[in-house]
Amino acid sequence: METISENRCFGGVQGVYRHPSHATGCDMTFGLFLPAEAALHPVPLLWYLSGLTCTHENAMTKAGLQAHAAAHGLAVVFPDTSPRGESVADDAAYDLGQGAGFYVNATQDPWAPHFRMWDYISDELPRVLFNNFALEEDRQAITGHSMGGHGALTLAMRVKGRFASASAFAPIANPTGSDWGRKQFTAYLGPDEGAWADHDATLLMQADGFDGELLIDQGASDQFLHLLRPETLAQAMAAKRQAGSFRMQAGYDHSYFFVSSFAGEHVAFHAQALAR
Amino acid sequence: METISENRCFGGVQGVYRHPSHATGCDMTFGLFLPAEAALHPVPLLWYLSGLTCTHENAMTKAGLQAHAAAHGLAVVFPDTSPRGESVADDAAYDLGQGAGFYVNATQDPWAPHFRMWDYISDELPRVLFNNFALEEDRQAITGHSMGGHGALTLAMRVKGRFASASAFAPIANPTGSDWGRKQFTAYLGPDEGAWADHDATLLMQADGFDGELLIDQGASDQFLHLLRPETLAQAMAAKRQAGSFRMQAGYDHSYFFVSSFAGEHVAFHAQALAR
Repeated sequence: METISENRCFGGVQGVYRHPSHATGCDMTFGLFLPAEAALHPVPLLWYLSGLTCTHENAMTKAGLQAHAAAHGLAVVFPDTSPRGESVADDAAYDLGQGAGFYVNATQDPWAPHFRMWDYISDELPRVLFNNFALEEDRQAITGHSMGGHGALTLAMRVKGRFASASAFAPIANPTGSDWGRKQFTAYLGPDEGAWADHDATLLMQADGFDGELLIDQGASDQFLHLLRPETLAQAMAAKRQAGSFRMQAGYDHSYFFVSSFAGEHVAFHAQALAR
Repeated sequence: METISENRCFGGVQGVYRHPSHATGCDMTFGLFLPAEAALHPVPLLWYLSGLTCTHENAMTKAGLQAHAAAHGLAVVFPDTSPRGESVADDAAYDLGQGAGFYVNATQDPWAPHFRMWDYISDELPRVLFNNFALEEDRQAITGHSMGGHGALTLAMRVKGRFASASAFAPIANPTGSDWGRKQFTAYLGPDEGAWADHDATLLMQADGFDGELLIDQGASDQFLHLLRPETLAQAMAAKRQAGSFRMQAGYDHSYFFVSSFAGEHVAFHAQALAR
């Protein structure tokens, strides 16, 4: 593992690291904020999965999470959103290929060789993190924005027992019913929709739900509401009697100005769940 | 004046606006955060001047000021750092020309026609702001980072009575003694060093000081310490018995990770001064 940069930040360290990935077959870069406490003892870990077009860097510099993580003594990891490199397949569209991994393991060409973000986030990157940093493996929580909200919710519901709590900012809530989903799942997973259900937060909520508390924030003035389909998740959460909150925030759009406005409440929510 | 964008942010609005400028002879863009209170009554205004290579956008998206400004009911304006455009003189170096206005009125060719950032920030932009937004003209404070810290301190000390308080993050403290200053002042103001003294925070501190309280934060691991020359300002502040604090922050560098780490304390400092 290679250290790209380390900056002192809110008494801790905001680092950027690169490592060769077996899952994706290329080098992967991630950001990791460690609070001051990590110099003394392992700390809980909050995962932040980013949205379409983002790298590890966007949320790390724009979401303002470090202030709150430092206040609560949590680490935050900012993974990349896809494999990258000249030898990695790509597409001219912003919502397919590099920057748009959708947190699945692709089974279709030309994506199958590298686009294995599910394995990377659920299995390989955790091992890299727990082997190299002062982090508590049994105290993890997860959040994300947009495509990353989709990733956070699907991981939380399918990797049972790992995450004490899960939250999302404007998640892609029902990709099997959206152009942010149907196009990508067809490309990555093939036309058989049976293979898609494991990657749809609304369908997973209807089937099983999440065994912790959920917090969902959605801007009422989000320019992508028709693609996000929050109403499907809200309905499923209520029907499942899922513990948690679905909040529609008046006036907010899809930007990092929205994410940063509620980042403090999400971090506090996870800190409370992790303290149990 | 043209509205480029408006995003809901921490209960208020983060706007970006463009207007034709008489001072700089080109269109100028600025960011303005208005807290929720501005919908009800005029609010105090904090100026944030940015550093080399920045536009209005960098601090607006990376410094995390809005959270704190919202908590204290303050507006924050994020001006650009220079005139811009194809008809505006420029230089291949990052520290001269567009993105590097140094908050002076240039008297030398080819800079004199457009590079009048002193007049823009001290005179024209205030009129634009107070004519168009719910802002209290008699309650202003100023801060800035690096080249913007230089601008904030020189404006605070020379525009007497305007700013209740002034602060800076890693300011260029003594440009007449630094390659971040001598090169630019020679280009913009000419070789006569007598014309430079009005734009050097350390010299202004030695001469007059500031009639409010100052707060200076400097990272001890700043990669540009030799160009910033913080020791000259610390000495001058102490010798002048200047009210305020000069803080050397162990481990911090020159990045926005440093700025955001102390943004909350700076905003609280200004809010306290503005409440008097």
